[in-house]
Formats: sequence, structure tokens, C-alpha cells
Amino acid sequence: MKQAIGIDFGGTTVKIGVVEGSQVLDKAPPIATQDYLDATTLIDDIARTVHTLQESFPNICAIGAGMPGFVDFPTGRVHNLTNVQGWKNVFLKKELEDRLHLPATIDNDANAMAYAEWKVGAGMGMNHLVAITLGTGVGGGLIIDGKLARGANSVGSELGHVSINYKGRTGPYGNHGGLEEYIGNNEIVARARELYREAGHRLSLDDCSPKTLAESAQAGDPIALLVWDGIAEKLACALTSTVFLLNPEAIIIGGGVSKAGPLLFKPLQEKLFSQIGDPFKEHLQILPAHFGNEAGMLGAANLALETFE
Amino acid sequence: MKQAIGIDFGGTTVKIGVVEGSQVLDKAPPIATQDYLDATTLIDDIARTVHTLQESFPNICAIGAGMPGFVDFPTGRVHNLTNVQGWKNVFLKKELEDRLHLPATIDNDANAMAYAEWKVGAGMGMNHLVAITLGTGVGGGLIIDGKLARGANSVGSELGHVSINYKGRTGPYGNHGGLEEYIGNNEIVARARELYREAGHRLSLDDCSPKTLAESAQAGDPIALLVWDGIAEKLACALTSTVFLLNPEAIIIGGGVSKAGPLLFKPLQEKLFSQIGDPFKEHLQILPAHFGNEAGMLGAANLALETFE
Repeated sequence: MKQAIGIDFGGTTVKIGVVEGSQVLDKAPPIATQDYLDATTLIDDIARTVHTLQESFPNICAIGAGMPGFVDFPTGRVHNLTNVQGWKNVFLKKELEDRLHLPATIDNDANAMAYAEWKVGAGMGMNHLVAITLGTGVGGGLIIDGKLARGANSVGSELGHVSINYKGRTGPYGNHGGLEEYIGNNEIVARARELYREAGHRLSLDDCSPKTLAESAQAGDPIALLVWDGIAEKLACALTSTVFLLNPEAIIIGGGVSKAGPLLFKPLQEKLFSQIGDPFKEHLQILPAHFGNEAGMLGAANLALETFE
Repeated sequence: MKQAIGIDFGGTTVKIGVVEGSQVLDKAPPIATQDYLDATTLIDDIARTVHTLQESFPNICAIGAGMPGFVDFPTGRVHNLTNVQGWKNVFLKKELEDRLHLPATIDNDANAMAYAEWKVGAGMGMNHLVAITLGTGVGGGLIIDGKLARGANSVGSELGHVSINYKGRTGPYGNHGGLEEYIGNNEIVARARELYREAGHRLSLDDCSPKTLAESAQAGDPIALLVWDGIAEKLACALTSTVFLLNPEAIIIGGGVSKAGPLLFKPLQEKLFSQIGDPFKEHLQILPAHFGNEAGMLGAANLALETFE
């Protein structure tokens, strides 16, 4: 089986590992993204890290990177990383290939996650798949007719910007009612704090993290339960729209917020299935993501290996 | 060039024509759908009509039908036509092939319209296309990566059920805030009547048809203008969601309501483009459909000919 480098490029750390199929064979120490003021020096250090990994894994044949922003897939150009200094119009594919003399594949991080789940995770063998990650941001990836569907400029599958209210909150593009504006991590915390405050509670920010909210809800706290129900309602709306458009076999849900498990999945399943017609329900499964933190790395590496298929 | 029969199966009439490329060469007199109490006798008469057309066009090599309801594309089974008596679980592909000894292709009518626009209409040569028809119902068809994307059970591309409000009006599947519940023909009329009544006008139903509303708006009537602005706002919301998901090259808009022209297209373009990021805008065009009433017939026939490609 072929081995590839998977790069999970985040706003906080760049994680680099050696991947074979569904396994991360080895990981380098993460690189602190914010220590770099420009793209070139960071790419230099990524290349150095890959070289070190190559000493133990001489058969690595490709490099894949999942990026937190818009990527032009065919050219491997990163449009812009809003949370990382100096990353505007970076031809990352070329930069990596020049330094490492291996074929490089650059994609959006949510596409990488979706690809991992489809190729070696919860969605193996499926032809129509919607993957969504719930974290600080809400991202997505789509498998349509057995292929990652990126759209005309490879910037599609932005599930976080699907609207749930045409008069709703304004998002980063002037868009109204985007899902992310309601169930991104910070918005969940803000909503919980609001509800607790109204009920006369005094709480710290920590008390309202999705993790704490899940624990509170499991312990029967009515406000925490209400928060989760609200998340499920909004998520169900955006997914109902997506199901009506794409009629998928499965929706795969990952990211920190999805760790709430049945607290999220149970009301979500109810609310979604009460809004779609029978033919849409026939084969539709709502599944937790198979991979956690390693999804991005696995997906990026497997995307890079796709060129050898 | 090959010739095929195109059947545009509507709730009022079944229209049957001979198609070659983008041309309807001949049409049979329409069949009144509601004259039939069951599927079999209607299919018999469709077959008879096709036989008559074959006398003048002996080289017809396939039959395509676009249906106003869910179709299982691979088997050509019609799930259910809510507006036509006796059409539940009809294996129309087999019924037509048995009678006519020609290969038959059955699809949803909005898919047929989308296919016509893509193959021989406004979207020729594009790989990523969203087609939407605005009439009594709101339907859609999607071209993704150069292929009609039907989804796992071939019931996707239901643009009319994309939600614009998670707490909005209830649709036919218990879904909330589906676009069709706001900008379907009847809903437009109802909204206009409501606004006129509030303003103290007395109006008949005819005075509020989309056609009359377009004329009134063109004459500067502020209420009619408000109605069109509201339609554009809601349509822009559903299309914003769709663009964020699918990043198409073009959105093609057809159906009776689209005949309002700039009254609809101008505010729609403004509202949509003010809600999406730059990479989504780069190649995105909003286009009126090339075909009118013949789109369904043309699309169905061309879909049938696809099997010969």
C-alpha cells in the first residue's frame, strides 16, 4: 500500500503525518502556525519536517494538504487564509513540489475530512454523501455520484453558509442566516450564556463550552437541553435543504460539537426525518464521523494518493 | 442527427412531440390528463399518439418522458403523481417499452428542463449548473461535474423545498420555510392580495396574477414592485444556499414567473451577489431559460437520446 504525507493546516498548528490507508503511521511534532509572519518560512519548515519523516519512510510518494480557506484545487493556489498572516494567493502546490520533488495536492480542510470519511471512514462505498464538521466554524464536503464535488471554482460545499433564515444574522459575506452564525462554537456558548443569564445563573465562559453543555444536559439540566435542542433544530433546517437538493445516502457529522453524541444526533434525526419525503428517507443515515482529529491528515494524504489510482 | 419522442407530462395536459437536437419537429394534439381515471388507459393513448407520429417520422429511436413527481430513474418507476389520478408505483419505462419497442427514459420534469437548458439551451458547455423553474410549484435540476445529479434515489434537486426560514411556513413534507411556500404562483397572488387589501384596494384574483403584477410593476405600482422585491429576496436566499453548496457557473431561471424579466432578475442579481464571496462570483451568471413551454419535451427527448451517446 502506498504512503503519503498528510498535512492538516490549522490556524493554531500545522500537523504533519505519514499516512497509509486509514492509518497514521507517524506524526511530526506540530508546527505553531502563529510563529510565522509569512508563508515562505512556514512552507520551508513544513518541507524540513517532511524531509525528516522521509528518513524513516523513504517510500512516501505524494503530499496532501488540507487548508482552512478557499483553495483553487487544479492549481493548488490558496486564495486567502483569514486567520493566518501572510497567506494570500499562495501557490502551495508548486511551493511544496519545488521543495520536495513529490506530487502535491491541496484542498480545503473540510473537503479533506469528507474524503477521509468516504475513502476509509464512515462513508466507505457510498456514492452520495454529505459530510459536515461542527467546530468554531461549520464546514462541509460533498460526495456526489462517487466523486468529491468541489464546484466550478472548487469553493463549494460551504455548509456553514447555508441559510436558515432569510432575515437572519449577517455572515462574513453579507449573507443572511448562515448556519455557522447560529451553531459555531462561539455562537453556542453565547446562546447558552444568554439563556442561563435570563434564568438568573452566574456562569463563566468555561461553564458554557459545548463540552460542559453536553455534560450538563446529560445530567438533566433543562437549559443545556434547550441549547442542544436549538442546535439540532437549526442544523436540521440546513440539512433538510441539503437533503432536498442532493438526496444523499448518509450525512456524516464530525468536529468538536458532534462529540455530544445522542444529545445532538437524536433530536437531529427526529427533526430532519420529520421534514423530508419518503424517498429521501429510504437509505438516509445520519452517522458520526469515524475519524476525530486525524480526519484532515488522513483525507489530505488520501487525496494526494488519488492521483495514483 | 437522431430523433426522439419527448413527452411533457403535466397535471393538465400530456404534450408529445418529435425532437431533434434543440428543435421540436412536430407536435401531437395534447392529451387531457384529467380525462383518464387510471394510468393504463392514459399510457395506451400516449402509445397510440406516438405510433401516429412515427408514421411521419419513421426514424424515431427513443422515447423520453418528464413527469411531475418523483421518479426512480434507473427503473423508470413513477412513485406517485399527487395531481393525477391512478398514478402510484407505475413502471412507466417498462409500460412504454412494451408498447412501443423503443428504449424509454423517465425522469422528473424539472430534471428534463435542466437537461434541455444544459444540452441545447442557455447552459451549453457548462459543467456546473443550477436550473430552477418558477410556476405553481418551484422545481429544479442540477448539473454537477458535467452530469445531471439526481442523488441516491434520484429524487434530489428539489430547489422548491430549500428552506429560507427554519421557523417558516410548513410544506408538504412537514418541512419548514420551503421556498415554494413563498414564491409559488398561488403564494405570490396571496401575498399581493394581502398587500393590496391592506392598502385599501379591491382586487380580483386576476389582478394579482404574476403576469398582471409584472405589468403593474412596470407601470410603477409601488405595491407590485414590493411584491417582486419580496420574491427576489426569498429566491436570493435559497439560491445563496445553493451557490455556497454547489458553486455553479450559472443559475438558469425558467417558468411563468420568470417572464417578469428584469423586474425579477435585477433585484435577484443584486441580492444574491451581495451575499456570496468573491470566488463564487467569478464565473457566476444568472440567466433566463432559453426554452419556454418546450423545455420539458426537449429535455425528455434529449435525455432519451443520451443512451445512444
